[in-house]
Amino acid sequence: MTQATPRSRAIGDLVAIVPAGGVGSRLWPLSQPHRPKFLLDLLGTGSTLIQDTVTRLSELTDEVYIVTGARHADAVAEQVPTVPAERLIAEPSPRDSMAAIALAAAVVEHRRGPSVVGSFAADHVITEAEAFAEAVATAVEAARTGMIVTIGIEPTEPSSAFGYIRQGEPLAGVEGALQVVAFTEKPDAATAQTMLADGGYVWNAGMFVVRTDVLLGHLERLQPAIAAGARALAAAWDGPDRAEALERIWPTLTRIAIDHAIAEPVALEGGVAVVPASLGWHDIGDYDSLASMLTPSDDGVIAIGCAAPVGLVRSTGALVVGGTRPVAIVGLDDAVVVETDEALLVTTRQAAQAVKDAGAAVARD
Amino acid sequence: MTQATPRSRAIGDLVAIVPAGGVGSRLWPLSQPHRPKFLLDLLGTGSTLIQDTVTRLSELTDEVYIVTGARHADAVAEQVPTVPAERLIAEPSPRDSMAAIALAAAVVEHRRGPSVVGSFAADHVITEAEAFAEAVATAVEAARTGMIVTIGIEPTEPSSAFGYIRQGEPLAGVEGALQVVAFTEKPDAATAQTMLADGGYVWNAGMFVVRTDVLLGHLERLQPAIAAGARALAAAWDGPDRAEALERIWPTLTRIAIDHAIAEPVALEGGVAVVPASLGWHDIGDYDSLASMLTPSDDGVIAIGCAAPVGLVRSTGALVVGGTRPVAIVGLDDAVVVETDEALLVTTRQAAQAVKDAGAAVARD
Repeated sequence: MTQATPRSRAIGDLVAIVPAGGVGSRLWPLSQPHRPKFLLDLLGTGSTLIQDTVTRLSELTDEVYIVTGARHADAVAEQVPTVPAERLIAEPSPRDSMAAIALAAAVVEHRRGPSVVGSFAADHVITEAEAFAEAVATAVEAARTGMIVTIGIEPTEPSSAFGYIRQGEPLAGVEGALQVVAFTEKPDAATAQTMLADGGYVWNAGMFVVRTDVLLGHLERLQPAIAAGARALAAAWDGPDRAEALERIWPTLTRIAIDHAIAEPVALEGGVAVVPASLGWHDIGDYDSLASMLTPSDDGVIAIGCAAPVGLVRSTGALVVGGTRPVAIVGLDDAVVVETDEALLVTTRQAAQAVKDAGAAVARD
Repeated sequence: MTQATPRSRAIGDLVAIVPAGGVGSRLWPLSQPHRPKFLLDLLGTGSTLIQDTVTRLSELTDEVYIVTGARHADAVAEQVPTVPAERLIAEPSPRDSMAAIALAAAVVEHRRGPSVVGSFAADHVITEAEAFAEAVATAVEAARTGMIVTIGIEPTEPSSAFGYIRQGEPLAGVEGALQVVAFTEKPDAATAQTMLADGGYVWNAGMFVVRTDVLLGHLERLQPAIAAGARALAAAWDGPDRAEALERIWPTLTRIAIDHAIAEPVALEGGVAVVPASLGWHDIGDYDSLASMLTPSDDGVIAIGCAAPVGLVRSTGALVVGGTRPVAIVGLDDAVVVETDEALLVTTRQAAQAVKDAGAAVARD
């Protein structure tokens, strides 16, 4: 046991893998290359997204692995001391999610034999822990049958920010799981509306539960270089040759997302199942979605980590993050003001998507 | 001589009076009760408004008096060391402009006999120093004939932010001066348009040139309490009883502006003249008028006193004042961002007038 908290919902035999990557550039200046989104206490709750993720998973399993960039390994180790060093996998460089998850799965299999692994992003928010535990338990049950299992999110709006999963017939023998017909790209607004009305679609939240031997088996067929590389790295991982193997093999691994490498092609072969669930799931991509998750005070202000008052004059609604001085917003609706030690961002909720270009704009001079 | 700079345009016998009052609440948080507008380097030129005012007047006369609130006397003395302590008049409390100017005029007359004084606000901008010197010389000439003389600003737009002066016949014997028919209140936009088309109006910039005996004579008729109080204070000013006299008399003086007390009624009697002039005059009342005075860089940014880059993303035009960190403005046109050690203001040029309520909004909690 490496966990201090007793696990109330342990799912036998599950090993969790947390890929911790992605800067979150639309959350600049909070998120920056040296301080990616998963390291942030984005909701101002006192814990960071990766801390919440590990806490949630530690309820389900003793074994949580984290795969992150080498430059963030120290920060992750500091934020999540319950994950021991041997389960913290540092990537020398980013090679996208398939290589990261394949390496972790291969290390798990090498250490303990074929196992069920579940991959859960480090920077997603899930507010319904009980429902999450139930969905994962169902997914593990389905994964034991040899399927790749994804947990799909019941849509709450016709969002065009996510990919959708088209559901098929119930999966025989596993209540709560359905066959996946296909993964679809992020739809336009009209298509999303149609999908929501249809009812047969859930959001793809990138959560995959699968047996390591099933995953690596599909990889051998579909991305043999990644499969061979991951297995070779896993064989060297706990011995003296890890560094040499990483230096030699890692840079050769194909950069591809797990969705494109495995989930989409295997779905077309009938090898993917989905467990639809309502988890209070959020992928906070920008300041508009952050604000929409929080309840404003009576005067319309959402203040996160502000040490001084925020005052509105002829303004309705504002999101203010950080800062030590009073902030006054005058004649501006839905303003977003974000202060860090390094920079000040001024925008509106409507323009939140364009924040991705802000870092470059101030680095210009 | 207390001036280091040689005076090239000295106007014999003129004594300048600079009333330094008014917070400038629409320029919060730069201007605040403890740091009023006249103490600010508002244009980022390296000198403050009162420094520029005194420099401009020191070209015309050896004797510049400043009347300011007691709480600002030290800051004024520090900013304008060329004005000796005996010409720095500290008001124990604000009693509006008539009391301030009457006191200064009475002190001048008590010290040196009847003289021509000119009153010029501490916080106005005048870019045409040569034209200003000529206008003052003409005003002094007209004042010697016993008129109250105002310098009127040739309107450059149909502004509804200023009072107007209706000009009459040329003043006999003084080229460049005209009889004043009447002062008018700030007009609405349509009326201002009519006045501009008419051509017989100039802006009232609150600059008055007058003989001390003429001013105090009018006051004796129109505001006898102020006249008597100012003379009594002046008699005690350079002796041991100044503090006692101030404490006893000052709080009793009527609070009234010089325009209402003297200029408007005397104009109706035919006792006021105007020297119309184009001076590059600006009374910077808010951030919109500040921005309109300055030339943006190629990317549309006006940056004043910013230590780091300002970047615009999907935004046209911005005024950014102060701050040590990079500032990114995203999806917001004509943004105004002002940082001081005490507070952060976010607004737009369109909403600049409403900034007057910002200080109260953040002081609420």
